[in-house]
Amino acid sequence: MIEAFMSTGCTAVEGGVCAPEGFSASGIPSGIRSHGRLDLALVVADETVPAAAVFTRNLVVAAPVTVSREHIAGGRARAVVINSGNANAATGPEGILNARATADAVARELRCEPAEVVVSSTGVIGVPLPVELVLGGIPAAAAALETHSGTAAAEAIMTTDTYKKELALLCEIDGRTVTVGGMAKGSGMIAPNMATMLCVLTTDAPLSSEVCDEVLRAVVAVSFNRVTVDSDTSTNDMCVLMASGAAGGELLAPGSAALSRFTELLTDLCIALARSVARDGEGATRLVSVTVSGASSVDEADLCARTIGESPLVKTAIFGHDANWGRVAAAAGRSGAQFDQNRLSIDFLGIPVCRDGMTVAFDEDEALRRFEEPEIAIDVDLGAGEYSATVWTCDLSYEYVRINGDYRT
Amino acid sequence: MIEAFMSTGCTAVEGGVCAPEGFSASGIPSGIRSHGRLDLALVVADETVPAAAVFTRNLVVAAPVTVSREHIAGGRARAVVINSGNANAATGPEGILNARATADAVARELRCEPAEVVVSSTGVIGVPLPVELVLGGIPAAAAALETHSGTAAAEAIMTTDTYKKELALLCEIDGRTVTVGGMAKGSGMIAPNMATMLCVLTTDAPLSSEVCDEVLRAVVAVSFNRVTVDSDTSTNDMCVLMASGAAGGELLAPGSAALSRFTELLTDLCIALARSVARDGEGATRLVSVTVSGASSVDEADLCARTIGESPLVKTAIFGHDANWGRVAAAAGRSGAQFDQNRLSIDFLGIPVCRDGMTVAFDEDEALRRFEEPEIAIDVDLGAGEYSATVWTCDLSYEYVRINGDYRT
Repeated sequence: MIEAFMSTGCTAVEGGVCAPEGFSASGIPSGIRSHGRLDLALVVADETVPAAAVFTRNLVVAAPVTVSREHIAGGRARAVVINSGNANAATGPEGILNARATADAVARELRCEPAEVVVSSTGVIGVPLPVELVLGGIPAAAAALETHSGTAAAEAIMTTDTYKKELALLCEIDGRTVTVGGMAKGSGMIAPNMATMLCVLTTDAPLSSEVCDEVLRAVVAVSFNRVTVDSDTSTNDMCVLMASGAAGGELLAPGSAALSRFTELLTDLCIALARSVARDGEGATRLVSVTVSGASSVDEADLCARTIGESPLVKTAIFGHDANWGRVAAAAGRSGAQFDQNRLSIDFLGIPVCRDGMTVAFDEDEALRRFEEPEIAIDVDLGAGEYSATVWTCDLSYEYVRINGDYRT
Repeated sequence: MIEAFMSTGCTAVEGGVCAPEGFSASGIPSGIRSHGRLDLALVVADETVPAAAVFTRNLVVAAPVTVSREHIAGGRARAVVINSGNANAATGPEGILNARATADAVARELRCEPAEVVVSSTGVIGVPLPVELVLGGIPAAAAALETHSGTAAAEAIMTTDTYKKELALLCEIDGRTVTVGGMAKGSGMIAPNMATMLCVLTTDAPLSSEVCDEVLRAVVAVSFNRVTVDSDTSTNDMCVLMASGAAGGELLAPGSAALSRFTELLTDLCIALARSVARDGEGATRLVSVTVSGASSVDEADLCARTIGESPLVKTAIFGHDANWGRVAAAAGRSGAQFDQNRLSIDFLGIPVCRDGMTVAFDEDEALRRFEEPEIAIDVDLGAGEYSATVWTCDLSYEYVRINGDYRT
């Protein structure tokens, strides 16, 4: 279900987070989720490696975010442990103790320091973590680690996702094959300007801790931070990158062509994962790409695309297969981006529908046909400058209301 | 359907915008809307009177907004003319000419200056205004003016509203009876930080143009600007106030107790209309009042209440009768308001569900019973200061998706 977005001519390979040399992964049922569903994932480096993470910008953060922020501060990690089914959020001091106990248990299994373990949780908020189930599952998860596939781990982090999201890409950098792998979960509570939903990235590229951090922030800004499903941001979001260096060679130097090539590779991976998160937004029937060009800055292009992508009126129009550009124009106009409405142009699905702020007659039957495509493109030209940005989202359907109206009841 | 929100002990009376002395109104079918529905409204003062208006802050504005901004700049008005069924938005220079022609036609009927006519439109965007229907209907609308009821006018401005919204209140000020009347339309594209949806306010209080403007801005800030249905803001929104002075007496002086009493009266009227707009939000099954207290400023209280009120996850939870305070906490945390999550308290429907950032056990059956009430209260205490604000919104239902997915198709 994941299509690679390969601007760099890289190659997609199997294996997910285990595709790069130096990593193993597992996913097991610990009993938190019902019906024996996988709910506990481990991604482990063969040894402690340079790592970085970005976290939700929500002021209300889950216990594992607090603990993992401390742990990753050292710039190195051995493992990421993730449970689904319970967010360990709004759980007070006991939640912090439970997150620490989880890291301790993984560290015991792997014979590493607890501070080298990144902890993450996703699921319902405000219910104490059933820590005995997590602790009970960790030995089994460690025993199940395997190096040829991250699929079980990718499955174990799913909540309302309808399919697992994993991908690996490789390309040549300075004569060596470099591989990046990743897994993500998304679906609801996906919104802009946060670290991201849950995502684990691995690579065999030789990176220092500082470069890990720098590359991760740059890549997240143009991938996961450009996805919005419902403008709500979670208390638990996190994206972590571990770099084994197993591809060999010198550390990629800041400012080097090799690092720039690696950044492109990781960007391709993350955009593909980000698009798959939008495509699998709760209740989504269509992936929607909103591209705003002609803005007077990247920030305004981003703001405008984001506002259009979050508009419930735009999202319901797409669900109704209605090329209602008036709603797009109204969203652009309230976004904060500066432009002259008499220079505004909008294309829906490649069909010009608005030029210089006014309606263009178009073939409605042809538009209806194009609405059958899996991806809906909205292109807006503000006519105010040279900058552009793309945001990915999905339509707003009855099913979104059902999923989120029925989630707990 | 409109309940008065009477903090000032005023009295509700019949008559809507015609309740204050010195005004007449009408609503007729001009043929823009099908099935002979009323679609053209006039509200007329007996003579040209002090007036003020606030408008949408959207950069993309409809032609009547451009024209009415010019007209109201003089601080006086004789009439407001409103058509429903077509927004005259994204209609270019021809749209401007059509809005001017509408004002001219009303001015001819009333023997006043075109600049004393405020023009307003609501309906579909991007379709040329059928100006011949509007111009053809104006003589009939002028002939139908009556002084005892504004009901036909209130009905003629409805679009997806399910009931008409009009109300009048009176109270004693300095020994004289002062009356305020109003009509509004809302439903979709209602969002914060804009002038408002369409609203016409009348009063017989003696106000100067400057005081009209000052009072209107103060009142809109705590009423219509605190309503959000779907975070989308329209290209056409406008709220206008006309003051006939027919109640007699001296002009209410800035800073006087009498003006302060009048401001309270108008605030009560506008909060009642604003709440009715939220209650009638597209597809709404419940009115939702979000009150944030304990904020470190009014702006942060407003921002936090607004973010909670706009959260699709909170709105769908209410539709599902789920006191899901985790979603409220997550929305508060991303709102930009500063607070310590360990001091956060939340009540749902008067039931404590979160204290000091942690779950409080509560009677879920009792909560389900309270969800049957027509108004759902969410009370959040940030524990960070002394300021508070209330925002009104509605739940997010299947019906919202149906209305907005099917609007044009």
